[in-house]
Amino acid sequence: MNISDIDRLIQMLAKLPGLGPRSARRAALALINNPDAVMRPLAQALTSAADNVKACSRCGNLDTTDICAICTDPRRDGALVCVVEQVGDLWALERGATFGGHYHVLGGVLSPLDGIGPDDLAIDALVARSKDAAVTEIILATSATVDGRTTAHYISERLEGSGAKITVLAHGIPVGGELDYLDDGTLAAALRDRHTV
Amino acid sequence: MNISDIDRLIQMLAKLPGLGPRSARRAALALINNPDAVMRPLAQALTSAADNVKACSRCGNLDTTDICAICTDPRRDGALVCVVEQVGDLWALERGATFGGHYHVLGGVLSPLDGIGPDDLAIDALVARSKDAAVTEIILATSATVDGRTTAHYISERLEGSGAKITVLAHGIPVGGELDYLDDGTLAAALRDRHTV
Repeated sequence: MNISDIDRLIQMLAKLPGLGPRSARRAALALINNPDAVMRPLAQALTSAADNVKACSRCGNLDTTDICAICTDPRRDGALVCVVEQVGDLWALERGATFGGHYHVLGGVLSPLDGIGPDDLAIDALVARSKDAAVTEIILATSATVDGRTTAHYISERLEGSGAKITVLAHGIPVGGELDYLDDGTLAAALRDRHTV
Repeated sequence: MNISDIDRLIQMLAKLPGLGPRSARRAALALINNPDAVMRPLAQALTSAADNVKACSRCGNLDTTDICAICTDPRRDGALVCVVEQVGDLWALERGATFGGHYHVLGGVLSPLDGIGPDDLAIDALVARSKDAAVTEIILATSATVDGRTTAHYISERLEGSGAKITVLAHGIPVGGELDYLDDGTLAAALRDRHTV
């Protein structure tokens, strides 16, 4: 049975995170049933993104321009550099729209078990950026996981003597979170870092 | 911030069933990080499928040829026609590989609330096919939902006098299913249709 075009599409879709074989079949059917409204525009969006999107050579953000739009935006404060693991974390902070500084994307976390060492991350580039006298604070916004904290600790040691203030994100109760459902570590951190109203 | 290529890609991906805005962002990042290994091949697979895949004018199956490979396969038994709601149901039966006849894809179920009547489904074409003397049995394999059963009932009335035997799928306990977790209707059907070992 020659359904190679359909099979190949399903196999390609199943490679996307969040789509297994079953949902890839559903997605392929939805696409095939809407060739002009959905399938061709998606193909064009993919080709266009493959052609145009690249990593910013300064901060590692993905954009259609290099240097990226965040690094070149004159309204943003270049004295603040927020260090994140991945571009997805950068996007999450941008959705929040409360951070007005620059970013530095590491490209991952230190993970000896996976063979990821300092040379695999953009740490040297961060150290180089930290020597710019215009940078006054570097926020280490890695995840609150063991690997993320280890990475933040390693980077803070590498940045010693840079002159910039090194900070990390606060731990505490997530907004909307119920005490009863929180783990002990978060509760302890929230209690330790309590402040006056 | 000019990230239109990325935003457009995320918007297109979020239209797929099973992908919400968050998983569409994850998928977009995974694609952008693998432009040549994943993104361009997916774009090509989409374009190729959009160009080549069409519905079989005889049974409604999706294939790159019209009439489709199932209808033209000489090893399959054209005397048996299995009526399914969607191409996805046909694929599910083909994965099982226990049915060796032909199919007829309705394109949905009767649903007065959604304004879907007999003229919106491939029922006239099925009635026409049933008049072929070579067709000896028509299996109504619609879902065991209210709409699916209503559709099967309507079709069985339309097929009266066609000469073909009209059958429906058996109800019962799913293989691997535990009695304790089954609904009353399934248990009742399984008990009613019990047979000797």
